Amino acid sequence: MAFIHEDFLLQTETARRLYHGYAAHEPILDYHSHLPAKDIFEDRNFRNLFEIWLEGDHYKWRAMRSNGVAEKYCTGSASPYDKFAAWAKTVPFTLRNPLYHWTHLELKRYFDIDELLNESSCQYIWDKAGSLLAGKDFSARAIVKKFNVQALCTTDDPCDDLAYHRSIAASEHSFRVYPAFRPDRALLVNDPEVWNAWLGRLAQASNTDIATFRDFQDAIKRRHDYFHELGGRLSDHGLNHCHASFCSEGIAAAIFDRARAGHAASPEEHEQFASFMMLYFGILDTQKGWTKQLHLGALRNANSGRLRKLGPDTGFDSIGDWPQASEFSAYLDRLEQENALPKMIVYNVNPADNYAFATAIGNFQDESIPGKIQLGSGWWFLDQKEAIEWQLNALSNGGLLSRFIGMLTDSRSFMSFPRHEYFRRVLCNLLGRDVENGELPNDEKLIGGMVRNICFHNAKNYLGLELGHSPSTREAQLVQK
Amino acid sequence: MAFIHEDFLLQTETARRLYHGYAAHEPILDYHSHLPAKDIFEDRNFRNLFEIWLEGDHYKWRAMRSNGVAEKYCTGSASPYDKFAAWAKTVPFTLRNPLYHWTHLELKRYFDIDELLNESSCQYIWDKAGSLLAGKDFSARAIVKKFNVQALCTTDDPCDDLAYHRSIAASEHSFRVYPAFRPDRALLVNDPEVWNAWLGRLAQASNTDIATFRDFQDAIKRRHDYFHELGGRLSDHGLNHCHASFCSEGIAAAIFDRARAGHAASPEEHEQFASFMMLYFGILDTQKGWTKQLHLGALRNANSGRLRKLGPDTGFDSIGDWPQASEFSAYLDRLEQENALPKMIVYNVNPADNYAFATAIGNFQDESIPGKIQLGSGWWFLDQKEAIEWQLNALSNGGLLSRFIGMLTDSRSFMSFPRHEYFRRVLCNLLGRDVENGELPNDEKLIGGMVRNICFHNAKNYLGLELGHSPSTREAQLVQK
Amino acid sequence: MAFIHEDFLLQTETARRLYHGYAAHEPILDYHSHLPAKDIFEDRNFRNLFEIWLEGDHYKWRAMRSNGVAEKYCTGSASPYDKFAAWAKTVPFTLRNPLYHWTHLELKRYFDIDELLNESSCQYIWDKAGSLLAGKDFSARAIVKKFNVQALCTTDDPCDDLAYHRSIAASEHSFRVYPAFRPDRALLVNDPEVWNAWLGRLAQASNTDIATFRDFQDAIKRRHDYFHELGGRLSDHGLNHCHASFCSEGIAAAIFDRARAGHAASPEEHEQFASFMMLYFGILDTQKGWTKQLHLGALRNANSGRLRKLGPDTGFDSIGDWPQASEFSAYLDRLEQENALPKMIVYNVNPADNYAFATAIGNFQDESIPGKIQLGSGWWFLDQKEAIEWQLNALSNGGLLSRFIGMLTDSRSFMSFPRHEYFRRVLCNLLGRDVENGELPNDEKLIGGMVRNICFHNAKNYLGLELGHSPSTREAQLVQK
Repeated sequence: MAFIHEDFLLQTETARRLYHGYAAHEPILDYHSHLPAKDIFEDRNFRNLFEIWLEGDHYKWRAMRSNGVAEKYCTGSASPYDKFAAWAKTVPFTLRNPLYHWTHLELKRYFDIDELLNESSCQYIWDKAGSLLAGKDFSARAIVKKFNVQALCTTDDPCDDLAYHRSIAASEHSFRVYPAFRPDRALLVNDPEVWNAWLGRLAQASNTDIATFRDFQDAIKRRHDYFHELGGRLSDHGLNHCHASFCSEGIAAAIFDRARAGHAASPEEHEQFASFMMLYFGILDTQKGWTKQLHLGALRNANSGRLRKLGPDTGFDSIGDWPQASEFSAYLDRLEQENALPKMIVYNVNPADNYAFATAIGNFQDESIPGKIQLGSGWWFLDQKEAIEWQLNALSNGGLLSRFIGMLTDSRSFMSFPRHEYFRRVLCNLLGRDVENGELPNDEKLIGGMVRNICFHNAKNYLGLELGHSPSTREAQLVQK
Repeated sequence: MAFIHEDFLLQTETARRLYHGYAAHEPILDYHSHLPAKDIFEDRNFRNLFEIWLEGDHYKWRAMRSNGVAEKYCTGSASPYDKFAAWAKTVPFTLRNPLYHWTHLELKRYFDIDELLNESSCQYIWDKAGSLLAGKDFSARAIVKKFNVQALCTTDDPCDDLAYHRSIAASEHSFRVYPAFRPDRALLVNDPEVWNAWLGRLAQASNTDIATFRDFQDAIKRRHDYFHELGGRLSDHGLNHCHASFCSEGIAAAIFDRARAGHAASPEEHEQFASFMMLYFGILDTQKGWTKQLHLGALRNANSGRLRKLGPDTGFDSIGDWPQASEFSAYLDRLEQENALPKMIVYNVNPADNYAFATAIGNFQDESIPGKIQLGSGWWFLDQKEAIEWQLNALSNGGLLSRFIGMLTDSRSFMSFPRHEYFRRVLCNLLGRDVENGELPNDEKLIGGMVRNICFHNAKNYLGLELGHSPSTREAQLVQK
Repeated sequence: MAFIHEDFLLQTETARRLYHGYAAHEPILDYHSHLPAKDIFEDRNFRNLFEIWLEGDHYKWRAMRSNGVAEKYCTGSASPYDKFAAWAKTVPFTLRNPLYHWTHLELKRYFDIDELLNESSCQYIWDKAGSLLAGKDFSARAIVKKFNVQALCTTDDPCDDLAYHRSIAASEHSFRVYPAFRPDRALLVNDPEVWNAWLGRLAQASNTDIATFRDFQDAIKRRHDYFHELGGRLSDHGLNHCHASFCSEGIAAAIFDRARAGHAASPEEHEQFASFMMLYFGILDTQKGWTKQLHLGALRNANSGRLRKLGPDTGFDSIGDWPQASEFSAYLDRLEQENALPKMIVYNVNPADNYAFATAIGNFQDESIPGKIQLGSGWWFLDQKEAIEWQLNALSNGGLLSRFIGMLTDSRSFMSFPRHEYFRRVLCNLLGRDVENGELPNDEKLIGGMVRNICFHNAKNYLGLELGHSPSTREAQLVQK
């Protein structure tokens, strides 16, 4: 039997019925990704497996480096095929790493390849995938449709002109592509050079001068408005931990002025400024009914030599262990006091903190919407079977799994949509096991309804994004087989 | 088959034999609860499911809020039935949350109800339970007897006059009700208003003036003596983390004097004062052979707006992530140096800390009694299957499960006694699986003896509480079916 | 069936095939232990089970104390038999603790004893083991050979003259014994008395005067060279957490001078000095191609009264919860910047940190060797089934299990070699389950190869130690039966 078969990961009869009956055919709402809107607009065709699969994938680079592969074959100057061959040789050493599952699930779903990738299958798989990629079925848009994605959100700097998003909106009706507002650079008063350069771009994008702190806030608001016009309904922040050293607007403005004049904020000032701004972002999101995403706890750019050579997002990040609970709670509490607590999804990258977050969200739920504060799906290093189960269990025990808005790809690659299938299989496997153990009632309609909601309908109802016109069910079925 | 059936949670033949043969019929020693002694003294009858089940249950309120239910139906002005209906509607959304298991286990054990609670069964269940609650079998005392509870401990402020405890002792012989000494407010020198008001009540209760720090300590000792007279053998403390900034009596007295004069202690002074007092409490407990309970790590009252409106213990608490290990060890070390380390149960609410605590207790065990320092059963957010198993596994691997004094309800409700049954099923399921996997010897007498001890006999031997006269085994059997 | 049988811990058919076909017969490379080289040189014979099994085993003492056994029977004055009897009585209370498995696995493998150890089997087992211990098959060297240990590393102070290691090297050819360089005392500028005494021994051992900081560094380097001459290729450090407060050589020298004059370094100065020295040790290891081991996170000597009476390493240590991620990353980053990052194995004792470490190592891998930075096997309190699985899972999900160099005993006892067998069974059981669940390909050659590598070949290739002449396969087979 092929490694990726119909019942991959589905260990019980109930799991199989739940997955095939309730999960497989649901559309996808991929509400957080890093896909390039340009590729979608241009309906890019990929020349080979390197372009569509390895080009920007720091997960694979990390695995290759751990396997002793030279940088030349990761981010360096080797030819696309040689890089692919270096990856193919590494794959058998990734047994038990999520890459092993993803790799073969992706080869199967895109190219119907059952062979395990390794040194000896390398050329065959390169060729087979390459010839398929040449066809029209593998353009960026064709892929999005093939996987029944009704909407997807990219991740964008407030200064981005979103030209591609506008153009896609004008030309594409079977799915929607929305920007998400990620103003991480706005906080960098501790690095005035980078920060002031960014303010220059912000001034240009918002068509204003930025002399005062008020100008700054106004400029940000204009961009937030602009994202909203294009249908954006989510913001996003990447933080080590929440900021909760709140200060007056006067103090924040003084820090602003000094940084504007090129003086770096001290760590305490940076905390204060970031706390003030995070409140401000909360207000903006609340006013427009947006959902705020927090990505907390990643220890980024740990290897400074590689950062200098290769830049960020090249595979030198890991899991931090900062205290999270008190500052997260203080941040949400302050937002609530200011009537500025928006819908929120908190993604946590350290599994030791799952329970702290899963219970913390419960302190801020209210009648405005079920599951107002969400514990995000297993993120980054936790986007794999063991950790997806941990997130599902923490949320189940600390809150309401039934109200969970489910999976997202968080990916830079058009080959990642099967991540949704993977998640759904893990979810159904967990629920199926519970049913067969008598820990859940043996009521397929009840459990199946929950599955459907988590796969798609909760996200649809929660986020309030307008969706594209779904492909036919038949097409969806073909995809998921 | 009904959801709650004879073998609920018992997945192996061995687990079923262990549970039915060794666990089910053991009496209950509920050594930590928040039950109101008044209700027991008055042998309260409950008019409906709201009164006995929802009235003070912040677990249920949290679930309802997460489900988008308005506060009116949680702590607010809605009618008892409407509140119950709001809960009933929420129950199907609690699948995989412990509330789903507890709900149906409680409905089954108290009212023999097999229907799953939801919107459509709501009226029927309300009516059926209501008519049973009207009878004599459902008064507070009848319930305690029905569940074969031989003794239970409430949780009490040192200023409490314990009048109900005295009266129960005089009138009730089939079970005992003891107070537990919880002097949390004694530490609040950082909040002089609350603290001085409490000292006023303490002075009254102990019939002394409290002018000096020595007066204060004496007054506390008098109340400790009084609790002892009434048979109390446990104290209890709720702390974010242990205090281990030890200071001289002179410094503690100076902090006392300033707070007595209305000046709030600084954070450092608060730490010092609390450290001094926690040593003092250790001395009191040691002198009388008591057991000290520490409830560590809860992040309380995270939502300040709701705290102002609804008060504490209304469902706005979660799991903290303060460092625990060093200060816990320093506290116990200091107690040991002062020959003032009493028997102790440490309850931990962050599962990430289970192993640190499970191994830390091993540094302070001695020949005075087996298992002198106990890792308490899964507490609060951890009182559910997954986390009960974690606690059992951490204790097993880091210490001696065989010496564990087992379960307690920690509950405000007379509907919570099946929490013992739940724990026993989880325990037997774990052991049964180990036996069938060959990880424990297949020796039923050996494993069964351990089960019996954990269910009841260890607690009995460890705590030294005088017990009531147990109901007949037949009655116990009826309960557990 | 006996408790320890051929398929102990092997729950699936695949697990059994993997273990018996690929793991059982691999030799042992025990690259980290605390065995006394003297015993090996003298080919010590053990008079009884106390000498070989209880003499220095703080795991057993901890269990006995938790069981209420008096210190007299742990480290005290009781007779060897009475101590053994106290242990035998405790064993049935260790059910689910790793001691229960280790005890019976060791009795079976060394003495072919199937009886469970308890009060009634105590005398029989004492006698049977005692009569076997008298024979030549149970001398220290015979045991090492019997378990097919090709090389083992002890743990040694830089001042140790390694005379026994030299003598063993001259007389023993079927296995090798190497010293490992553990300079923990070099960092103790916060305790000048202990530190200066140690510097006295260091001066003597290195045959130099140590007046200046440069002298000190030179003396250390001489000892490092000497360990290298004897074949040592590993260093080792026991730290609460990594030091990353880097300072100039001038500042480090000033701290050195003050400590040399008897003035204790402040906590900040201690951090600085330790950071400087840890860089220096990294340079030494890198220059010679050694592997650096870090043992992080243990909270040692928590019970100060017992420390005074009994000394260190007597069972009063537990798991710490210091932050680890940032300082670990900063230390490795600095080493990398200095071109002084050696091969490294990081052992973590707090399971909550497994994922942080498992991902952190990925930031520093490179093409010099596959798996350059290793996550060490479950250490101390984590050397048991549950936590071995956690370590394997964290490494699998965060890195490359296939490149793992596997198990070590970390033991003071010649009875601990079956710890390798235990680990191998756990590993094969995990992989077997994955295969049967379809999470790994059903390709025995592929998975079996990985097993073989983790059991022995990865460590062999990674560490670069010269090995002894392996005993015949037949001998190996007899051992593992």
